Amino acid sequence: MRATFHAQLDELVTDLVRMTRLAGQMMTNAAIALHQGDVALAEVVIAKRDQMNAMHDDTEQRCIILLARRPPVAGDLRAVVAALRAVGHLKRMGNLARHIALIARLKHPNPMTAAEVRPVLARMSLLASQFAEDAALVIERQEFGSESQLAEADHEVDALRRHLFGILFAEDWPHGVEQAVDAALIGRYYERFADHAVAVAAEARYLPTRRTPEPHGLETGCPRR
Amino acid sequence: MRATFHAQLDELVTDLVRMTRLAGQMMTNAAIALHQGDVALAEVVIAKRDQMNAMHDDTEQRCIILLARRPPVAGDLRAVVAALRAVGHLKRMGNLARHIALIARLKHPNPMTAAEVRPVLARMSLLASQFAEDAALVIERQEFGSESQLAEADHEVDALRRHLFGILFAEDWPHGVEQAVDAALIGRYYERFADHAVAVAAEARYLPTRRTPEPHGLETGCPRR
Repeated sequence: MRATFHAQLDELVTDLVRMTRLAGQMMTNAAIALHQGDVALAEVVIAKRDQMNAMHDDTEQRCIILLARRPPVAGDLRAVVAALRAVGHLKRMGNLARHIALIARLKHPNPMTAAEVRPVLARMSLLASQFAEDAALVIERQEFGSESQLAEADHEVDALRRHLFGILFAEDWPHGVEQAVDAALIGRYYERFADHAVAVAAEARYLPTRRTPEPHGLETGCPRR
Repeated sequence: MRATFHAQLDELVTDLVRMTRLAGQMMTNAAIALHQGDVALAEVVIAKRDQMNAMHDDTEQRCIILLARRPPVAGDLRAVVAALRAVGHLKRMGNLARHIALIARLKHPNPMTAAEVRPVLARMSLLASQFAEDAALVIERQEFGSESQLAEADHEVDALRRHLFGILFAEDWPHGVEQAVDAALIGRYYERFADHAVAVAAEARYLPTRRTPEPHGLETGCPRR
């Protein structure tokens, strides 16, 4: 019974890592779709949101089943609760990536973002995607240094948003209100995505280290399948 | 043991109702602070966020304790998980109300919102606060008609946001980029707050009806203390 519980908890953690990477990929593709006006890629992200939601519902259901099986010790209970919280953040990350993809689709074929804000938004999107990958690594490897580095790097996202607003609110902003509002909201979505990624990484502290070693495990840095 | 469990679950539900009403009051006050440029009231909302966070941490901890006490039946387990999810939404609602209050403080003494968008934003804020009160009532009275009415009314919030953007993006918008971006973000915060309130109401379906009747209970519609 105890072994089964822990095996199922391990599977849950593996799926959390998978979902975190999916969220990061969704955001990467959404940002490419936005900056390159790639509607087909935007559609991929929009469709992936359904996959993310299905994974959310499935993992959440498995958390509840694990709770019903009565976690052997308090630490196991905390782990399942941490997984429950993490899947909530991951679902929201999928939604935020979809928001970006929807803007990419809506604005096509007009250029999405003015040249002045493009580098700032590109950097924000890069950090957002990177944060998801970092969160996946924190869960996978249980390296908590990177978790606090992540929170530190989150300040860069805040600084970028302030910088973005500085550009938008400057007197010589030439692109009018609609492009400014779009850029502000896109920046907001990247920022929220990054916040959720940091929150996912913070839950890792309660998650178990893997009990069943795998042939391609921590040393190689390969994703666990 | 079973009686204790249910008594504690009832207390938890009472506190969820209290938190939901607090979120609604925070949003009402944040909107008044914004529209009337009332910095003192904005400070009250900003301070209340700490209270909301403390209530979140406390109720979440009690959820985990209840899970550790091993819920007697599956329905009880679902109720605790629903409470866990609801407190997450409520914490976020407190944060969103604080965002509005921070804008009110930041922009003081300049008038916050242009006359053109004031009625739309006022209506959105009213709906957001009303949704919180409706969610509290759904939990309190277990009336699920109002839960679906709430989801229906959520469409009005979406329509208001589209209307808001129509005003901001019109060629004759006279107030420049900064006021437009502020209004768009404020609208976004109201919309998200309303979404979270709908999500809180949706969790009510899993929460228990009250087992211990109170002198001022369901009939009078008084808040439960």
